[in-house]
Parts: sequence; structure tokens; C-alpha cells
Amino acid sequence: MIIVMKSGSTKKQIEHVAEKIKEYKLIPHISKGKETTIIGVIGDERILQNVPLESLPGVEKVMQILKPYKLASREFKKENSVIDVSGVKVGAKKVVLIAGPCSVESEKQLFQTAKAVKEAGVDMLRGGAFKPRTSPYAFQGMGEDGLKILAAAREKFGLPIVTEVLDTRHVELVNKYADCFQIGARNMQNFELLKEVGKTNKPVLLKRGLMSTINEWLMSAEYILSNGNMNVILCERGIRTFETATRNTLDISAVPMVKTLTHLPVIVDPSHGTGKKHIIDSMSRAAVAAGADGLLIEVHPKPEEALSDGDQSLLPIEYAKLVLSLKKVAKAINRVI
Amino acid sequence: MIIVMKSGSTKKQIEHVAEKIKEYKLIPHISKGKETTIIGVIGDERILQNVPLESLPGVEKVMQILKPYKLASREFKKENSVIDVSGVKVGAKKVVLIAGPCSVESEKQLFQTAKAVKEAGVDMLRGGAFKPRTSPYAFQGMGEDGLKILAAAREKFGLPIVTEVLDTRHVELVNKYADCFQIGARNMQNFELLKEVGKTNKPVLLKRGLMSTINEWLMSAEYILSNGNMNVILCERGIRTFETATRNTLDISAVPMVKTLTHLPVIVDPSHGTGKKHIIDSMSRAAVAAGADGLLIEVHPKPEEALSDGDQSLLPIEYAKLVLSLKKVAKAINRVI
Amino acid sequence: MIIVMKSGSTKKQIEHVAEKIKEYKLIPHISKGKETTIIGVIGDERILQNVPLESLPGVEKVMQILKPYKLASREFKKENSVIDVSGVKVGAKKVVLIAGPCSVESEKQLFQTAKAVKEAGVDMLRGGAFKPRTSPYAFQGMGEDGLKILAAAREKFGLPIVTEVLDTRHVELVNKYADCFQIGARNMQNFELLKEVGKTNKPVLLKRGLMSTINEWLMSAEYILSNGNMNVILCERGIRTFETATRNTLDISAVPMVKTLTHLPVIVDPSHGTGKKHIIDSMSRAAVAAGADGLLIEVHPKPEEALSDGDQSLLPIEYAKLVLSLKKVAKAINRVI
Amino acid sequence: MIIVMKSGSTKKQIEHVAEKIKEYKLIPHISKGKETTIIGVIGDERILQNVPLESLPGVEKVMQILKPYKLASREFKKENSVIDVSGVKVGAKKVVLIAGPCSVESEKQLFQTAKAVKEAGVDMLRGGAFKPRTSPYAFQGMGEDGLKILAAAREKFGLPIVTEVLDTRHVELVNKYADCFQIGARNMQNFELLKEVGKTNKPVLLKRGLMSTINEWLMSAEYILSNGNMNVILCERGIRTFETATRNTLDISAVPMVKTLTHLPVIVDPSHGTGKKHIIDSMSRAAVAAGADGLLIEVHPKPEEALSDGDQSLLPIEYAKLVLSLKKVAKAINRVI
Repeated sequence: MIIVMKSGSTKKQIEHVAEKIKEYKLIPHISKGKETTIIGVIGDERILQNVPLESLPGVEKVMQILKPYKLASREFKKENSVIDVSGVKVGAKKVVLIAGPCSVESEKQLFQTAKAVKEAGVDMLRGGAFKPRTSPYAFQGMGEDGLKILAAAREKFGLPIVTEVLDTRHVELVNKYADCFQIGARNMQNFELLKEVGKTNKPVLLKRGLMSTINEWLMSAEYILSNGNMNVILCERGIRTFETATRNTLDISAVPMVKTLTHLPVIVDPSHGTGKKHIIDSMSRAAVAAGADGLLIEVHPKPEEALSDGDQSLLPIEYAKLVLSLKKVAKAINRVI
Repeated sequence: MIIVMKSGSTKKQIEHVAEKIKEYKLIPHISKGKETTIIGVIGDERILQNVPLESLPGVEKVMQILKPYKLASREFKKENSVIDVSGVKVGAKKVVLIAGPCSVESEKQLFQTAKAVKEAGVDMLRGGAFKPRTSPYAFQGMGEDGLKILAAAREKFGLPIVTEVLDTRHVELVNKYADCFQIGARNMQNFELLKEVGKTNKPVLLKRGLMSTINEWLMSAEYILSNGNMNVILCERGIRTFETATRNTLDISAVPMVKTLTHLPVIVDPSHGTGKKHIIDSMSRAAVAAGADGLLIEVHPKPEEALSDGDQSLLPIEYAKLVLSLKKVAKAINRVI
Repeated sequence: MIIVMKSGSTKKQIEHVAEKIKEYKLIPHISKGKETTIIGVIGDERILQNVPLESLPGVEKVMQILKPYKLASREFKKENSVIDVSGVKVGAKKVVLIAGPCSVESEKQLFQTAKAVKEAGVDMLRGGAFKPRTSPYAFQGMGEDGLKILAAAREKFGLPIVTEVLDTRHVELVNKYADCFQIGARNMQNFELLKEVGKTNKPVLLKRGLMSTINEWLMSAEYILSNGNMNVILCERGIRTFETATRNTLDISAVPMVKTLTHLPVIVDPSHGTGKKHIIDSMSRAAVAAGADGLLIEVHPKPEEALSDGDQSLLPIEYAKLVLSLKKVAKAINRVI
Repeated sequence: MIIVMKSGSTKKQIEHVAEKIKEYKLIPHISKGKETTIIGVIGDERILQNVPLESLPGVEKVMQILKPYKLASREFKKENSVIDVSGVKVGAKKVVLIAGPCSVESEKQLFQTAKAVKEAGVDMLRGGAFKPRTSPYAFQGMGEDGLKILAAAREKFGLPIVTEVLDTRHVELVNKYADCFQIGARNMQNFELLKEVGKTNKPVLLKRGLMSTINEWLMSAEYILSNGNMNVILCERGIRTFETATRNTLDISAVPMVKTLTHLPVIVDPSHGTGKKHIIDSMSRAAVAAGADGLLIEVHPKPEEALSDGDQSLLPIEYAKLVLSLKKVAKAINRVI
């Protein structure tokens, strides 16, 4: 950690900062320049993370050197983590395909979709039973009935299921049915929920918040890891920017960037990331080319009757066609679909 | 609602959209221009909010005309709402002052702060017992012990208390102690939590998400209102932008903007909004001048020992001085502090 | 165009708006709903673009239906434009490779780079003679001497050159030497400069402003087109967001999005778009997979001695390796490199 | 400057960085921690600003300690600069009022506005003769004819005039007529233009770019100062964020923040900053309360006939009323209007 003193800070102020650092058994190292004095801290600066050093008199700013996360960092674990979701390996050579409707609406709708995406070569089935909706007047999901339909689809089609959990009170329930929890973008910093899923052993697909930095995203992963659950899959799903032509700006660069910082696998959700059906195919290919470990895509047998996100859902036939083109891109970069 | 068809959309596509609208007992109104065809919808378009009209063939985009919230809108209630928090009126002529430490750390710390801010003229006491922290290794709050200290401070100093609730499982507990719930920025779209506080009668201070539009903020208020609790106080606390000189960009313009859209009172939190102690006074004056109904400010007797947010906490003496200058600004715009 | 009236707007106000529209020989079409009145405008609404309709009493908001650009739009020209830069076709089946140093620093440096990238299979050479630098104390480019070196490199290596023009006073000079003008991100809305290059016949590589919407970008292209120069190549180079891990957020989704809106070709600059050398290869592959018509990449024979952007420049050998992998990705989507 | 090495960087890499620093006659100071090695640079790090240290092998990141601007900094000049615009002091106790139409449209329009704002107590007149417009089809300003009308208004009403310059080729012409140059938001990083106005002695009102950090804004001021012109007035005019309810987000916090970093005066433009006529009054009061040295407001005698920005122009009578309320706010903070 580097503490930059204000120009004109007094000797007493500098010493006060140094004393403060020593209180935490760390060693301050003072360098006086012509224009400013800086104080370097030798030792594990994470100890000082919650110490309000900027409030000390004479301090201009505090700059962190070390990353604030530990278990999630590439330094902690050099090789890539491969997460096993009921037999599907996420983070291995195969780029994992996850597809399904935004919401579970009925057995018929889910089974029809599951059958189609299974034929297209999907590895895992998605579908929401609890839905976070911007409007209180919108469809809020089927709840446990939806979970039961998901479980039935797993039996019938042999696909592990991933489904969202919204509320600490539902973690136990969802755990009973799902192969993988999904934590949605709006809950990326719902720390109580992160702690609860962290106490299970089940894989967690952790979406990036639509307003979250990569650093915060990895800190949220750290919440799950530090509670004992090492099975975290990251999912980029678009961030909010000033651009309004797309629903969000899908940050494909987060894929290679995150892979340098962490050992955890990272997948991409181009459906929410763009919100525009006609560019999902291009962006799926881009994600695979950039090194994503998987793709999460919304598919609905009749998008115009979907109870949520119909505008951005692909038809099964469109999805099947997309998968064919993705196989070629994966091969071009020595991966497999 | 206006549905804009693609240039070159066919007659059949246009008719299909029209049929879809009629299914919902609304009347489509087709206007053909030289370059495009648009379809207007007569009637309450909110019914169509969840219908994926953009997925219909030939549709280019769908534009909403009506506001998606109803109970929160100025059209629903023309006069300003005044929210009563155990006798303190928020939204009336008096600009309400709320202050206190970020976290409750001990009885001594809270009582010392409460005494000082009471003397400075504060109307309400704030303090966190459950803390949402970016890092799992940071102080997470005292929990129920903190709530008990808050309640004791209320008895001793006669100040209503506002404190954050993070988890649906804690709503009942916090309700027992607090005069006003706080929903933090990270939970603005924790819809399950909004529903739970919406089922109580207690006032709710709803912070704006750090990357939420005004529209989404009012939709979150609508969640609380539509569950039966009309006692919502909005709180602007800074949004995330590209600027890094300040912790967030305090969106003062949200104050007058929100007041044209809703009847609910709106207060400002310049401590989180700026994250820079030395500009809190200027921004507090700006907020009052812009018409804010209150100010939420972090005060700590010894900021450098605070367990959270010490960098942005004012000393009691600094706060008292600020209040004096705020009185003059309030008077200049015909309000009172 | 749709004009939405405030709820409670008077008959007189509605008629006043209607009269205003008729003044411009357009036909207003009034629809009264229960909650609001809307006025549709039949005819070319672009005529009203500069009419301050929102200032009329009773008007709540004005919504545009038609795109504000015309010559740049896909509706104006259905087939893709292919821009010929001294024999290199941009927008055809071949994905065009442009590479070179950020700044021209010396004949030796440029020739060495040109030789290397030529061998790697590049189609065009880039290099800045006039440099827009954030700091007045930074290297500002070699000026005309740099242009002369670029021209000499063209002769020697047979590569068309693209170089930036910053100032209306230099358009004539740069036009004498370059095969293609570059308009940088900071000048995307330097409208006087756009007009000047629009009066020439030379191709213009128009970078997206780092905080410009796709709509504004196409309006800037429209400036060039409407001045008579139809040879515009768009270039995505990253936008500014809250994320700080990368220098900018490369908006790959702009590639397919722009292609639905315009007939102009679009290339990608992953060097400026990411500012991080180690992810340029992944992002180049992603750009090609998303359908980009070309790549603009910074290459320097000795990055650590570069006078600008050394941090994000590839070594010639790294570039050559990248090109090999790009060939495979291009083939996977039926294009060629 | 602090150079952070990658964990696992070699001794040779560390020495190579140290050598590089010594080449520039600066002293490297190496600190080895358990997890990482950092290299501090003693001496004026600005020398290294353009040295691509991040491209050196083993370097993880480079952190600047000193501010990159010098002449603009508070350290360079402790007391506030007061800029004299033909007798009007900007940055003194009086909060300066600047008003007028967006564009000069005719003598009648300008004189009518000038008369009205003069009576309301304005200090300076604004009006654009050269207009940067997003659309090539929009009114581009009256050019020199507009400048002549501005000069005539100055004679008749005794008000200094401020008007925008867009093009290096017009600097001489505008200099002949104006009392103060305006550099618009879109030209904040038009460095050639900054250099040209920097070579004159005339005051320059430098608007913040709508995508610019405070740091970049001060670097643009540094361009003018370092060319010899010390008469720079900063103007906050709103930044681009994700919020769409307002045209831009007026960053009032930039006012106190900038004042801690620089000695230059800073004014606020709430007209462009909000784009919403009905909140201009609140935001003007907020700007004054936050410590702004002046306000730049658009006033038009007949907004609905304005050729530009009519939607956000105040009527003279509205402006006069606003000035009355601003006087009270100024008084409350010990300033004068």
C-alpha cells in the first residue's frame, strides 16, 4: 500500500501515519520527494483494507498495490479451475453450452425447449422459477412448481439444470432441485445470499452485476469461496453504459481480462448482454473466439408468447443453426463444442 | 405504446401485430408513412409491458408512452407526500437532518455521536447494525446487538432511528427496533426484500442504486407501495460514472427531476455520494438549494478509528458548523432547518 | 415523430402544437387516450429536427421515429459499401489488416515495422505524424516529416498508408501524402474537420468517439457523406465506462449492430480499445468472429522505446503469430485473411 | 511513480526497469514484499509520463503519484486566480452571470435578449456565431455576421461578449470581436485549437468534455496555460452517464473538487447540463450553493422559434425571476450576485 501525503503535510502528520501503520504490525517506509512524501507499507496490506487512512490529517490519497481478493486470485491457484456440474466440466477444453427459456412457464413449454436444445447439442438446461422483475406487476415466476418441472426435465432429457435463487430463504429449496445455482446480476452484491450459497457445495454461476467492476465481481466470488464453496463459475452478461442501441454493452474483453486475474472459469450470456435477438449469433461467436468457457443463451419455442424476455429469445431452429457455426469457431481456436 | 415497423415490413406482419394487440382488448391504430409504418395502441399500454412485441416479425422497435409506475407517479397523487417517522415529518417545509456513524460499533461510540448530533440540531439518528461490505473479510456489523444499542440511543436522546435491512430473514427483527428501514443502494433491486418491507407499515428510506435510472428507482418504490406500504422516502446517494476523482457522482439533478415525476419526498446522502470528506459541506448546501427534503450524513467521533467509512465521516464539530450554514441556505429558498 | 402531451394539457395547447406542425407542411394526427394525448406527425419528421417542440406549452416529450441520418442508413443503400483504398477493398470478403506504430518516429523505425508487418501479411500501413496527446508536454508527432517517411514506406513496401488528420489547416497537406485519412476518437465531433475531409474524395477512417453513441457516430459519418465523400470506413476503438481494468471497453457488439443500421464497413482497433497488450490477441479474434471488416493494430519493433502507446504495442513477431490464428477464425465464418 | 512488478518477476526484469529509470536521471527505489516487488521513483516523475514502462517485461502496472498538470495546479499557485474579462472579474466574491441565446439568429433577437438580461442584472452576454451541431442538416450559425451583431450588442448594452470558436482557422477572426473565447465540450480535446487560443491573451471559457474526467479537463487547461495564456475559466456543463431522464448529468461535485485541485475559477452551465428547462432554476441555485464562480444560462425571447436549443432556453421573465432567488442563495454563502 502507498500512502501519498499532501504537499505541505507536516512532520507530525507523517509520523502519525507511520504510528498508525505500526499499530497493525506493519512496517512503514517513508520516501520524501521534492513535491510530496509517500509512505510505503511493507507486509500484507489487506490488514489495512478497513482502516480509514484517508481520514488521517495530511493524507492525500491511499493507493492499493495488492489485489483485495485472495482465494479467487490467479496467484492463489495458478492452473485453471474446472467446475463439475453433475458431470459437465466447465473450464475444460470443451466450450459448454447452456440454453433454455428465461422463465419456466409450463411443463409443455420446458420439455419442448429441452428436447430441441438437447438435439442441438446442449450440455445443460437453464430456466427461471424465481424471477427478479423490474416491475411488481410482471410475472414473478412459478416458484417451487417451476423447480419441479425443471427436475422432471432433467430426468427426461439427462441435462443438468441451472436456475436462479433470489432470496436467502429459498437457498435450501433450490438446492434440493438444481444442479447449479444462478446468482443474477442484481444480486451480485447481495452478500447474505452469497454467504448462504457459499455454505453449500453446489456449483454457483455468478453473473456480473450490470454496474460492477471486474474487481467487485471477483470480491463477490471471494464471498462464496471464503465460505467454503470453491465451485464458482463467472458469467459476463453485459454492463450498463451510455449506449442505448443495445440493452447493455456486452463486455467481451472481461473474458480474457478475468482469466489473467483468476483461475475460475468464465462464460458469457449474449442474450441479456445485448437484448437484441439479431446480434446474438455474432456475439456468441465473438465470445467463443475470445476464450469464453461457455455460453448461456435464451431459447423459447414461441418467443412471442414468452412471459419474460421473449424479445431476446432464439427459436430452437435458430439456436441449432448457431451451434453449428460455433463448432467451427471453437475448432479455429483449438477448443471443442 | 407505439410500435415502429421495419421499412419493408409486409401487410401480413402488420396485421399480425394488430391481432396481437386486440387479443389484449386494446385497439391498434395503424399509420402508414412513406418510410415506415407505425402502430399506436389506444388504452392502458401497461397491460402489454410483458408482451414481447419486439419478437414479432417485422417489428423494429417498441416505444412506451406511459410511465411504467402508477402509485409512485405524480399523476396518481398531485400533492407532495409527507412521511411521518415517529413524529418527524419528511417532505414538509423543514429540511430533515439525519446523521450518525456508518456502523454501530459500541454503545459508547453511538451515544457520543448521538449526543453531539442532537446538540447540532439533528432530527433522526442513523447507524448500521447489518453492513453490506464489498469484502468478506471486512466488519459485517454487530447484528441484533447493534439494533439494541440503537434502540437505547433512541430512548436516551429522543431521536427516531433509521437502520439498514439486508436480508428478508431480518425484516421482522429490524422492524422491532427501527423507526425507519433503510434499503441500501445494492439492494434497490432486491425485489424480495422490497416486497417484505412493503408488507409492513414502517417508513422505508429507499436509496437509489449506484447504476440505476430514475425510472428503475421509482419502479422499486412501486414494489413497496403496491404491497401496501405508502411510506417511502427516496434517497439519492451518487451514481457510478467514468469519473474517479470522487467515489461516485452525486446526481443532484435527480432531486428536482424526481419531484416532477413522483409525490414521494427525496433526500440526499452526500457522504456516500462523494466519498470525499472535504466536499461534503459544499454538496450538502447544493442539495438543500436544489430542493432536497433532507440530508443523510455520516458523523463519527473519531473517524480514524471507524470500522467502516471513516474516510468520509465528519467530526461532530464539523457537522455542527455545517448545520449552521445549511440553515442560511434553507432560509434563502423559503425552507427551514 | 410522436409528441406526447402532459396529462392535463389543454385543448388550446394541443391545437397550438398541431398548428406548429402544419407550419412545416406536415400533418398532425391527434390521438386522445384516457391518461394522455399523443400527436403523431405524418411526413418526413427530419424537417422538425431543429424545431424546439418540447418548449411548447403542454408538451411532455418528443419521440423520434425515423433515424436522423439518411445517406449513411441501410435504408438508403441496401447492399454493403466496399471502400477502395488504393486497391485494398474494405468491406469485401477479405478481412483487411492494418498495422503499424502509433507514431512515426524515424525512417528506421517505420521501415523496420513496415517490413515486418508486410511479411506477416498486412494490407495497409498505419502511423501518426500529427498526434493528439492528452498532455502538452508529450511528443506531438513529426508533422510533415513524418508524412514524408510514410510516403517513402508506401513506395518501398507497396502498402497504402492511413494517417491521422487533426486540424482543418492540415487537410490539404495530409491529402497529398495519405491513401486514407484517419479521424481520431477525440475529433469524431470536430464537425469543421469532418466537412473538410468530406470535400475530398479520399477514404476516411472514422473512429468512434470514446463516449459517443452509435447514433452520433453515424451522424458524424453523415457529415462526411453529405459533403460529397461516400468513402467512409467506421472504426470501433472502445468506449469509456466505469470499468478501469481495461483502458476502454471495446464494444464488439457495435460491429453487428452498426451493420444492421448502415451499409458502411466497420473495422475494430483492439489496441486502443483495450490498452492491455496481453488481451489484444483474444479481442482481435473476437472482432473477426463478430464480423468486423478489418483490424487496426499497433505494432512497434521496440515497444519500450516507443514515443507513444508503447504499453499497448505488439512486437512484430507477436503480430505475425496473431495473424496466423486470425486466418483460422476468418475461415470459420467464411471470410478470408 | 510506483511500478508494481508481477508476482514471479525475475531479478533481471527488476534490474532492467531500474536501469530504464536511471536513463532518465531518476532514482529507482526497490522494495521487495512477500507477494510483490515495487519500484518507487524519486524525482520528477512527469519525465516518465511518455515512457512505456508497462511494456517492460515483468511489469504489472504503473501508478502515478504526482498530478500530470503543473501550471493549472493548486500547488503551483495557492491563491485563487481571478480572470478579468473586459472589466468583469471571474473568480472574485461576485458570482458572475452570463446569459444569452444559444445561437445569434438576428440583430432583433439578440438585442431583445441582451436588453432583457441586462435589466435582470447580467454581467456578460453569450451567443453562438459558429455552432457545432450533431446533424449536418441543422443550422450551423451565422458566422462573421453573427460576430458583428454580438459586437454591436456589446456597444449598445455595455456587456462583454463570450462566443464559441470551433476551428483553428477562425481564432483570429473571433479574437477580433469577442471578449472571451468559448471552447465547447466537443472541442475540449481539440488540442490544436487549444494551442491557438493559448497563443492569444484573451480569456478562454473552457467547457468540460461530456466524456472527460476532471484530470483530462485540467490537462486541457494546461495546454492553454503552457502556451502562455493564463486566463482560463473552467465551465462544468454536464457529463454523459447511463441516465436518460436528463440530457446529461450535471456534475455539481466537480465544482468543489476542481477548486481543491486548481486555482482557476469554475462556472456552471445548467442549460446544457440538464437539457430540461423546468429544473434549470433548482440546479442554478445548487451550483451557486456549491461554490460556482458563475452561471452560463441560455435565454431566448421566443424559445419555440429558436434555431437551436429552444427546448432548454428560459424566457427573459423566467430568467429575471431566477436571478432574484440566486441573490438570496449567494448571500447565504457570503457571496454576491
